[in-house]
This record gives sequence, structure tokens and C-alpha cells, in this order.
Amino acid sequence: MEELRQRILSEGQVRPGDVLKVDSFLNHQIDPVLLDHLGAEFARLFSDRPVNKILTIEASGIALAIAAAPHFGNVPVVFAKKGESVNLDGDKYRARVHSYTHGNDYDLLLSKRFLGEDDHVVIIDDFLANGNALEGMIEICSAAGATIEGFGIAIEKGHQVGGKRLREEGWNLQSLAIIESMDPDTGEVTFRD
Amino acid sequence: MEELRQRILSEGQVRPGDVLKVDSFLNHQIDPVLLDHLGAEFARLFSDRPVNKILTIEASGIALAIAAAPHFGNVPVVFAKKGESVNLDGDKYRARVHSYTHGNDYDLLLSKRFLGEDDHVVIIDDFLANGNALEGMIEICSAAGATIEGFGIAIEKGHQVGGKRLREEGWNLQSLAIIESMDPDTGEVTFRD
Repeated sequence: MEELRQRILSEGQVRPGDVLKVDSFLNHQIDPVLLDHLGAEFARLFSDRPVNKILTIEASGIALAIAAAPHFGNVPVVFAKKGESVNLDGDKYRARVHSYTHGNDYDLLLSKRFLGEDDHVVIIDDFLANGNALEGMIEICSAAGATIEGFGIAIEKGHQVGGKRLREEGWNLQSLAIIESMDPDTGEVTFRD
Repeated sequence: MEELRQRILSEGQVRPGDVLKVDSFLNHQIDPVLLDHLGAEFARLFSDRPVNKILTIEASGIALAIAAAPHFGNVPVVFAKKGESVNLDGDKYRARVHSYTHGNDYDLLLSKRFLGEDDHVVIIDDFLANGNALEGMIEICSAAGATIEGFGIAIEKGHQVGGKRLREEGWNLQSLAIIESMDPDTGEVTFRD
């Protein structure tokens, strides 16, 4: 998606450790206009799928999912929580995820009341790198008997393994910008065509 | 706001420990239509204020802020992060907050690049109870020299101290539903008029 790629080129900052900072428009400060356009593009890409729920992961995935929901006919959004919370009692699905970003393990948690075998979901998130969080979401959907209609990602780090693995597994993965390489010395970002 | 009160009465669940669960429509599963209406109501309540930015706190505040943004002329949304993150380098504002919900202390963090003395903000969040998180946001806005035009809260626990203190301090606090009391034995919820 050209608008997102241009925004990454103009405002993104490449940092050592394979970090791309897009915190001026996507995951700290958020541009609602851009987000609305990303949501519309996801809806277009999944228009042939019978989506009745959007799943995402706290925290920054929530913004993207909420912006997308009106374009999917205002289906409910459910976000998986990280770690334990006293506000999340009762039966829940749980998947263990390792975070390379934060260097720790955490649980993805989702109440069983909000996901079941009648659900056809698109899983939306801002970033895809090694894909561990999405594998956790697949595990949760499998436990719930829900059908995954696809994955909608804003920025995929194409040089990491997550996207490659999901495509090899046959999932319908739609990434709006795929980064082929980035150089912390020059700041240069190259996209996959 | 009658629509929100009715939704709390029909779907909210009162639990021991002063917990009101609204996870079927507000902070785990989210109804985008309701959220849009809440956002429109915030915009109406602050229509006389020169708002150029919406602030909120991760995670569930993000959904409400994103839904509100189009009603505020698509001003940017900035969410304060909890705790440290390798993605949040550089200079940042920081405020220490005690969470009664989780029984721990955490830091609210907000990059200095996204808040300054030209900003006129509305601070939006899903819940107001003891108000500690909002006091942290006041501290951050004060450090930034930003002007707080008001606070927009979905559900205020009126029997706790946060709202009372903010009003005594003279802030423009707009809560869409104020709970006067709730009874975990009967499940009854009473609203302030």
C-alpha cells in the first residue's frame, strides 16, 4: 500500500537491533486518517471472506482493529490480553508467547465467551516479525474452533521468519507494507515489490 | 449517556472487590457502534474547547480514543505506555502510578516528541476509579506544558475518590456514566443522576 510505504519512508526511523520506529503515526502517536485508510484496505483485501469478528493483541493492535471495524460492517473487535489480569476471570484461552522485543515470555489470554466455532475472524496487528504472537493467536483460534479467514498486518519485516512461515502454512496473510531490508547506518528502508 | 447506562445494566456484571465487568462491549470484546457513539458524545461535550490532540493510556483506553478521533476532526491520538519498552527510546515524560486493580506500581511513559506547550488535549479513558492514572497524566501534561482541556471517561465509579478529587481540583471532567453504587450480591447497579 503506497500511502503506508511513503509514510514509513518519510517518518520511520531505523535503529540498531532491527528496530523500525513508526511511533509518530502508528504505535505511540497515531494518525487517525492513515489508520482509517489502512482499515479500509484490509476490508478490501478480505472482501471475499465471511468475517464476523476482528481479533487483535493489546496494545497497539487495538488502534488498527478499531479503525478497521467500520469497514468490516462494524463486527465486534476482541483483543487478546497479555499476562494475567484480575478483570479477566472465568474460562479463557491461553497461549504462551516469547517476545524478542521485550526479551520475555508472556501469556496471550482471551475469554472463552468471546470466541467460538461460529466465528470467522481476521487477525489484525501492526507488526509481523518472527510471528510468535500470531502463532499464539492461531493456537487460541484452534482451541476455540474458530475459523481464521486471514491475517491483516500493517508492516511485515519480510527479512524475518514470521511471514514466510505463515505463508508456507497456507494462511491468507495480507501485509500492507513488507520490508525487505533496512540499514541502521544509512537509515535506508527497502520494500518488497 | 442513556445508551451506555442501558448497556451496563443489560450486560455489566458486578463482582466482589468493586469490580464491574463490561468486557462484552468495552474492554475485551468491543462494540464498534457503541464506541462510535461514545466518541461522538465526547466531541459534543468538548465542542467549545480547542482540542488538537487526544491522550489516552494503554490498553483499553486506546479503543475509545481511536473511535473518538474522527469526531474531533481527526486530531492525533497519543497513548501513554505502561512500563519500559525498547521501542520507546529517547527523551520521555514519566509518571509513577499505583494500580489498585493489579496491586503494583508502574510508570506511565510518553515520548517528549509528541506532547508540548502548543498542545490542547482531552484525556480519554474507559474507567475512572481512584484516579491515579489520570493524576499521572496530569503530571505528564504539566511537565510538557500542555493544556488539559478536559477528561472524557466512559464509566466513572462515583463512589470512589478519583472523580471527586478531579472536580475539586477544578478540572473539566465529563463521565458518560457515573456509578453511585453496585452490589455484588444482587448485581444491582445504581447510577448518579
